[in-house]
Amino acid sequence: MPPESPLWKIMHPRSVAWLGASNNLAKMGTIQLRNLLDAGFSGTVYPIHPTEETVLGLKAYPNVEALPEIPDMAFVVVPARVLVDLVEDLGKRGVKRAVIVSGGFKEMGEEGAGREAVLLSTAERYGMRFLGPNCIGVMHTREALNTTMFPVSVARGPVGLVSQSGSYVTQVQLYLKKLGIHLSQAISVGNEASIDVVDCLEYLAGQNDTKAVILYLETLRRPRRFFEVAREVTRVKPVAALYVGGTEAGGRAGGSHTGALAGNDRLYDALFRQSGVVRVFTLEDLYTVGYALASQPPLRGKRVGIVSHSGGPVTSMADACERYGLEVPVFSQALQEAIKPLLPATASAANPVDLTFGLGQGEMVTTIPRRILESGEVDGVLIHGIMGSSYREAFFRHFKGSLGISLKDIEIGQKEGLTELARIPRETGRPVICSSFMDREQDDCTKILQDMGIPVLATPEKAVRVMAALGRYGSLRGVRSR
Amino acid sequence: MPPESPLWKIMHPRSVAWLGASNNLAKMGTIQLRNLLDAGFSGTVYPIHPTEETVLGLKAYPNVEALPEIPDMAFVVVPARVLVDLVEDLGKRGVKRAVIVSGGFKEMGEEGAGREAVLLSTAERYGMRFLGPNCIGVMHTREALNTTMFPVSVARGPVGLVSQSGSYVTQVQLYLKKLGIHLSQAISVGNEASIDVVDCLEYLAGQNDTKAVILYLETLRRPRRFFEVAREVTRVKPVAALYVGGTEAGGRAGGSHTGALAGNDRLYDALFRQSGVVRVFTLEDLYTVGYALASQPPLRGKRVGIVSHSGGPVTSMADACERYGLEVPVFSQALQEAIKPLLPATASAANPVDLTFGLGQGEMVTTIPRRILESGEVDGVLIHGIMGSSYREAFFRHFKGSLGISLKDIEIGQKEGLTELARIPRETGRPVICSSFMDREQDDCTKILQDMGIPVLATPEKAVRVMAALGRYGSLRGVRSR
Repeated sequence: MPPESPLWKIMHPRSVAWLGASNNLAKMGTIQLRNLLDAGFSGTVYPIHPTEETVLGLKAYPNVEALPEIPDMAFVVVPARVLVDLVEDLGKRGVKRAVIVSGGFKEMGEEGAGREAVLLSTAERYGMRFLGPNCIGVMHTREALNTTMFPVSVARGPVGLVSQSGSYVTQVQLYLKKLGIHLSQAISVGNEASIDVVDCLEYLAGQNDTKAVILYLETLRRPRRFFEVAREVTRVKPVAALYVGGTEAGGRAGGSHTGALAGNDRLYDALFRQSGVVRVFTLEDLYTVGYALASQPPLRGKRVGIVSHSGGPVTSMADACERYGLEVPVFSQALQEAIKPLLPATASAANPVDLTFGLGQGEMVTTIPRRILESGEVDGVLIHGIMGSSYREAFFRHFKGSLGISLKDIEIGQKEGLTELARIPRETGRPVICSSFMDREQDDCTKILQDMGIPVLATPEKAVRVMAALGRYGSLRGVRSR
Repeated sequence: MPPESPLWKIMHPRSVAWLGASNNLAKMGTIQLRNLLDAGFSGTVYPIHPTEETVLGLKAYPNVEALPEIPDMAFVVVPARVLVDLVEDLGKRGVKRAVIVSGGFKEMGEEGAGREAVLLSTAERYGMRFLGPNCIGVMHTREALNTTMFPVSVARGPVGLVSQSGSYVTQVQLYLKKLGIHLSQAISVGNEASIDVVDCLEYLAGQNDTKAVILYLETLRRPRRFFEVAREVTRVKPVAALYVGGTEAGGRAGGSHTGALAGNDRLYDALFRQSGVVRVFTLEDLYTVGYALASQPPLRGKRVGIVSHSGGPVTSMADACERYGLEVPVFSQALQEAIKPLLPATASAANPVDLTFGLGQGEMVTTIPRRILESGEVDGVLIHGIMGSSYREAFFRHFKGSLGISLKDIEIGQKEGLTELARIPRETGRPVICSSFMDREQDDCTKILQDMGIPVLATPEKAVRVMAALGRYGSLRGVRSR
């Protein structure tokens, strides 16, 4: 992405003027600056403060004019009534980019909308582009850039997020951590007076750290331009969108939130479909589908194989596949014969492959998924119930040492198996999605798989839902195998 | 429930004959016995073993005949080929109840079905009723009874579970723990040769520790009897069911699992509706809806109030309400006027009530929900984002002590507010459902609320889905307010 994007310097600032922090640690602007510094941001930060000599230990400047250089970006958390004058000052100093957190604009009705128009024309007079007002800031994990209120030390991930709600950038951080989902960059767009969702989509399309883009939308201010941009982006990078402005209640709630008018649900539905955007309907799907799109190849057909050692989960998966538009074909005799030697006598090889519960699970992780995918009879594989530490704790805790093999050896063998599994999508061009009732803190297999890019969802149906979304992307991109 | 239920002694045994444990800790039967003992079961256990003098430290008996008393129940984990002879022995000794874990019966096709018929007729000859074969055992938290393979020390809860999949009783324990959901009793029915889902439903209907019953179904062997029983039970106790045998793939998968034939999806749908059973489509919904049904009053209409300090979540909730068939009515002027003094100037009082983000959240937890519910303008309230420890960590960690109030004082005030909130459903007869991105391990408010019986779901849409299910139950029971 060329530096020409209005987002470029906002997401890669070498220097930031910070307006609205003080040494009062109970103020939002101060908390946000504190978090930026704690995140290890390596650029220069210039706090602007009328009276303080230093702010949070940094040399402070009485006004923008006094800055020793033109900062790449200004971060603004000041009351609405003084904002326009400050933007004027920034413009005069030559500052071209800003993030404006301050509220009290279009989201407040007519009077606020008037204030926002003045703000925009002031900025435009100086060629300044800005995020907000009424936004929460940005995160760029590779740049250690976190201007939000939550002090999470964010691990690097492959998902780029653009959100018309600040909460879905900030409040969700601990939630995403539990799910093993990490972001590359996140942008809270607020009222979109100057920079909107389309600008952000265009920007993230060119960012190498971002393998898929997810959008939380209450409205689109430039639907036509969105269509043009999204159609191009989705040819090379998956995009998923959660749109909540299409119902009467959703539109009303969204309207009071960032000053947007509700759109029409069917119109948006067609817009997404025609531009290749995968539409989802819940926040959980937005993040989990986004992560799967970023880490897995698309599903190039509807046919999936199902593997587990548990009858309930394979049945849930099979039922959910059909409800979500996927197929669970009965394997050919040849494929069944090829798998059978790997299964206990009581197991079913027909698809779903139900190994029935036993104390070992090695084949489920390695040979069987590969053989199924290499057969060409399915387009992707779902696996439920790969367990490591939680399982050892449950079954082996009473007889450590009496196994003739150490737990350490089991761990090593397990790691090898999981690494082998994680290679399959890359090598076959077909996705693997897992589910496990044990999350990454409860079981090391879940953590290892997630960290190697294999999505592990909490329940069988969630895994199917994510797989179905990979299928929708495959179908929207026209990459069907038959 | 009278002791006449075939389940009574199985769920309340004072003495258990245990067939299939040894001192080899790598065997299933041994692991299960180990778990039973670890759970603190207070009844007498008689291991049966041909050669060992003791098993896991308990005096062992060479055969059933040698037992010093007739045990209330036998627990059987032996190979299928020796099972019938053992059941014959049990019958002769006068044992009337059993849990048969052994597999190799109807789930294995025709030959297995033949074996199962012999097993059943043998048991019947002695008036013996049993769970299984091919089941995983039972849990009864109040009795410290846990015969499953997972060594979880299960906390007491209000939800009774009957499952045709053993995994959904055992493997899910850590998953339920994360969700703050606890069971009263859980029954894995296996092949249902002698005792089936209907028997279990009838039994749990009469159990005081069970406030709602949830069913995982791949098929119903006695649909007519199910209808008669469920219709009666749902008059006094909510029942939710996840049925996965209605799709081609689900039916096929389920068939190979517990030897059941797939039913017809629409037929089952009508059956559930007409008998007052709330149907759900995912495992997550089964447990979360079950817990809400057990802990909250039904939603007696479609109208809900929404309260949060975050625009995204209220918009997601409003959108989801409409998609799931709930209404988000605009509040009357009178109600809006009553709420407004409690809100910041920038906030919306119309419904959703969006307090906009600030450092305090007291009114959201106490006064506002109560005022909304007491107005009679809505039938239930959804609240997103009550945060305690995670929030204090995020915002207050840098200035502990400089607040003029200690964190301890904040915690006490918070606990009082949450206790006040938890009283509202009982006092108004209307449900309160919450969502928070922070789970019970990440935030003390989530834990406190869940432990006081207020469901806290992980995302806004999940809270709405659970509320909608309370509405379906209210509607099925015919308890509408208008």
